[in-house]
Amino acid sequence: MKLTVLINCPDQSGIIRSVTTFIHKQKGNVVYLDQHVDKQAGVFFMRLQSEFENTVSLDHFKHDFEKEVAHGFNMEWDAYTDGHQPKMAVFVSKYNHCLYDLLSRYNSGELSVEIPFILSNHKDLEYVAEQFNIPYFHIPVTKENKAEAEDKQLDLLKKFDVDFIVLARYMQIVSPKVINVFPQRIINIHHSFLPAFAGAKPYHAAFNRGVKIIGATSHYVTEDLDAGPIIEQDVTTVSHTHSVKDFIAKGRDLERIVLSRAVQLHVARKTMVYNNKTVIFS
Amino acid sequence: MKLTVLINCPDQSGIIRSVTTFIHKQKGNVVYLDQHVDKQAGVFFMRLQSEFENTVSLDHFKHDFEKEVAHGFNMEWDAYTDGHQPKMAVFVSKYNHCLYDLLSRYNSGELSVEIPFILSNHKDLEYVAEQFNIPYFHIPVTKENKAEAEDKQLDLLKKFDVDFIVLARYMQIVSPKVINVFPQRIINIHHSFLPAFAGAKPYHAAFNRGVKIIGATSHYVTEDLDAGPIIEQDVTTVSHTHSVKDFIAKGRDLERIVLSRAVQLHVARKTMVYNNKTVIFS
Amino acid sequence: MKLTVLINCPDQSGIIRSVTTFIHKQKGNVVYLDQHVDKQAGVFFMRLQSEFENTVSLDHFKHDFEKEVAHGFNMEWDAYTDGHQPKMAVFVSKYNHCLYDLLSRYNSGELSVEIPFILSNHKDLEYVAEQFNIPYFHIPVTKENKAEAEDKQLDLLKKFDVDFIVLARYMQIVSPKVINVFPQRIINIHHSFLPAFAGAKPYHAAFNRGVKIIGATSHYVTEDLDAGPIIEQDVTTVSHTHSVKDFIAKGRDLERIVLSRAVQLHVARKTMVYNNKTVIFS
Amino acid sequence: MKLTVLINCPDQSGIIRSVTTFIHKQKGNVVYLDQHVDKQAGVFFMRLQSEFENTVSLDHFKHDFEKEVAHGFNMEWDAYTDGHQPKMAVFVSKYNHCLYDLLSRYNSGELSVEIPFILSNHKDLEYVAEQFNIPYFHIPVTKENKAEAEDKQLDLLKKFDVDFIVLARYMQIVSPKVINVFPQRIINIHHSFLPAFAGAKPYHAAFNRGVKIIGATSHYVTEDLDAGPIIEQDVTTVSHTHSVKDFIAKGRDLERIVLSRAVQLHVARKTMVYNNKTVIFS
Repeated sequence: MKLTVLINCPDQSGIIRSVTTFIHKQKGNVVYLDQHVDKQAGVFFMRLQSEFENTVSLDHFKHDFEKEVAHGFNMEWDAYTDGHQPKMAVFVSKYNHCLYDLLSRYNSGELSVEIPFILSNHKDLEYVAEQFNIPYFHIPVTKENKAEAEDKQLDLLKKFDVDFIVLARYMQIVSPKVINVFPQRIINIHHSFLPAFAGAKPYHAAFNRGVKIIGATSHYVTEDLDAGPIIEQDVTTVSHTHSVKDFIAKGRDLERIVLSRAVQLHVARKTMVYNNKTVIFS
Repeated sequence: MKLTVLINCPDQSGIIRSVTTFIHKQKGNVVYLDQHVDKQAGVFFMRLQSEFENTVSLDHFKHDFEKEVAHGFNMEWDAYTDGHQPKMAVFVSKYNHCLYDLLSRYNSGELSVEIPFILSNHKDLEYVAEQFNIPYFHIPVTKENKAEAEDKQLDLLKKFDVDFIVLARYMQIVSPKVINVFPQRIINIHHSFLPAFAGAKPYHAAFNRGVKIIGATSHYVTEDLDAGPIIEQDVTTVSHTHSVKDFIAKGRDLERIVLSRAVQLHVARKTMVYNNKTVIFS
Repeated sequence: MKLTVLINCPDQSGIIRSVTTFIHKQKGNVVYLDQHVDKQAGVFFMRLQSEFENTVSLDHFKHDFEKEVAHGFNMEWDAYTDGHQPKMAVFVSKYNHCLYDLLSRYNSGELSVEIPFILSNHKDLEYVAEQFNIPYFHIPVTKENKAEAEDKQLDLLKKFDVDFIVLARYMQIVSPKVINVFPQRIINIHHSFLPAFAGAKPYHAAFNRGVKIIGATSHYVTEDLDAGPIIEQDVTTVSHTHSVKDFIAKGRDLERIVLSRAVQLHVARKTMVYNNKTVIFS
Repeated sequence: MKLTVLINCPDQSGIIRSVTTFIHKQKGNVVYLDQHVDKQAGVFFMRLQSEFENTVSLDHFKHDFEKEVAHGFNMEWDAYTDGHQPKMAVFVSKYNHCLYDLLSRYNSGELSVEIPFILSNHKDLEYVAEQFNIPYFHIPVTKENKAEAEDKQLDLLKKFDVDFIVLARYMQIVSPKVINVFPQRIINIHHSFLPAFAGAKPYHAAFNRGVKIIGATSHYVTEDLDAGPIIEQDVTTVSHTHSVKDFIAKGRDLERIVLSRAVQLHVARKTMVYNNKTVIFS
């Protein structure tokens, strides 16, 4: 049996010793430990995996860990057993490349999640959902009905017990009403190397500025547009020979891969957020 | 004998045919041709190299080319023979990494220029100039004496017949007085992936934003700060484990290499500027 | 109407002039020209695109071009009109990631081909073909029946008038019988940075050698295993923290993208082969 | 006061707990911990940094750590205090780019070492040593005098109490006589992406194979030529437009940066060797 523990707390002496001693007492063996100290903020972060010969009750472990270790260090923490598959809702609009990428990884077993549904403000990608046999909900969003549409979204998210949302080129601004229910659990892909070219039409802006490299950025969604904690970024070279259309085509490959990596990191519980930045464990 | 011709003109039919026919008549052989059409702007760009069995007078060539070809197509153009070494002045402040990089390439014969002098607002790097036996001029710049200091700079640039200027982490804003004398002939290195983090302290800004990639950008200097035509960019990955100090250290390697590549492209006459963007020939 | 011409011939004076003059006479306008001279081999390569106001007969163009230009320069050449979609057969085995990538690009209109069928020595990926509504032929290959199986393959390739074949992790050695019918028209993806780790199990070999970077290579298939002309390569970093399983997972993303780029280049007729190497036009 | 401990030992339960408990007892605070388990080999690796409020005697620490912790776990280990500058000898031949890079970093304070001397089989780079005011020893090596020349090298290395050797394009095979005195303490830069193109003239071999990416590899020297544990690799793209000369020029920038990074990792004691592979701590 394998247990992963994620911790953050005020930096102080003795944390690693206390945690590893506790694991040892529970007859567990630490097989991986990655820690980080943000010295400016005075915060300690740790991700630890341990193996137990005998089955351990997760509830007992949590109860004892809180009492014997976490409380004293003022920790925010959580523990997970192997094999738990989070429920991931995918929001899309009209572009299919990120959706295809996620679904083919899902079908290959590369992506260890359940996908209860795909949701869109358009009907365009219903055929993709059908190809992969996943429910597709069409909830049109207009200026007038936005609040109402988001209520419908929240109903679905609740009904299907969704753990986190992936905006796979959703092209709509998600309002605080939804964000607050899924803090640090909505992953967006923005088609630029943020913070350059936030907002609409980043490839056009990059083309006009004459940059020699374009990028894509995946981040957790916060109320500030395109300003949430960055999970993953990647770039590719461009030149004067490329048109805006070429930028968009090259960018699609970046978007696919960057979003996919961010989702994988989130699912593997290798991300932690602090001060609008991420710690990405190895 | 080898001749390089750089051309830009309104896009129209028959340009390549006319130029190559002219070269043929002069008993030259085209050994390289790279062209580009900016369709939005309606502009044609070309870089062409030709070899001549017999020596050709550059003046005659230029006179005939203007009359028989360039005039009709309304070309802006220039022609260069091999082996001309442009005179490059280097402006520095207190950081030595870009200067060392340029000078060691210069000493190795990698960089085909003359360096008549190094100029600085500080005395700190005089010892580097001495190591490489290059004159070093110390012209302090303050708010009060800036205009006067730039006059002194211009005197030196004129006296030594300088072709172009490299700001190797010069850390001072160059005023239009100097820029206008060296249009598209002042190359700067900015320590960020522009347009992100223009202005001062880009590594600190990148750290605070929590980016996963940092960059460096070399561009021609225009009156708009850090907004001139981009010649070359490169990036490197960073993570939460890196401090601002680490960003700066990793960035130094980017700055070195990006500035050096931009200078090489300029010296090889592979750059052309249009609409605040560059065409970089292969 | 747009016409693309691909040429290679012994390097000699006057080629560009003659070709562009011919285009001009036909009332065409050269909109793109990329040329390359392999000085060691003494060979000239060119890719040229021209636009014609009036419709031109491709046959007439070809006839006249051969007579007036190509013959004199001893050219190997071909000309293509826009919009021709080549027929691409996909050979697979059990891995689905490259197949999914190609099919989702095909479905998105990113990949301008027809896919008459998918062929495999296993039944495993039939469901993917069904998802995308493409015929799937299952031709088992064993040591004993290989010659016979390849005859069946050739029958299908002929029947469906296939232009080129993509081996999307086919995992079988293709024999000269098939290669000779499709010279420089079979594209393979090898899961290493060739020439390192040719042959079987390259990720295991890379892991054992302790490399810090792994790669993938797409090449035209020749009789020498994994030794054909390289079309495209890409790499990604690895470290001691990665297991062979991690290498394979990271490698899948490389394989997808490298194969896809190679196929795109082939379809756009931007590749030319000479001396077991490729010229890749911009 | 800061202490860095490097450990490897058979993988077993309780290692982290025991080490951190020991540090805690010594009134130290763990500020960084990176560990790795090679599951195939059954080996545990750790790098740990701790801060002590009061000064600790390194000798006492080592004595107690061996007795109370290391002995029981059968550890190979070492401990280092801050600020120790290792003595680095640089061996060169005729190429100056790696030497210039190392010396300019050394002069900038980027590279925290002492350089007691530069050694060469040629006189060509004596002027560089003079520029940076470092002793230069010229020991010619021929087939006939190789054993004798290496004796002279060993005398110098001993006399100057050298900790490790950097082969900055030394172009000579170092024999076991020298390697055995500096096991895992001779760092070489090979101008290819190993294991591809080991041996002589790798850029020519890469050019002839028509690769689209070239690389450089820094590794510890072992008796097997170009087959020692890899510390660092990097790559850059090339195309058919590049000649062998271009490969060499682009490669120089790779060699500089890859060798410099490897040296930095070694000096920071972030490398550990096992089974002819490296663990590179973060």
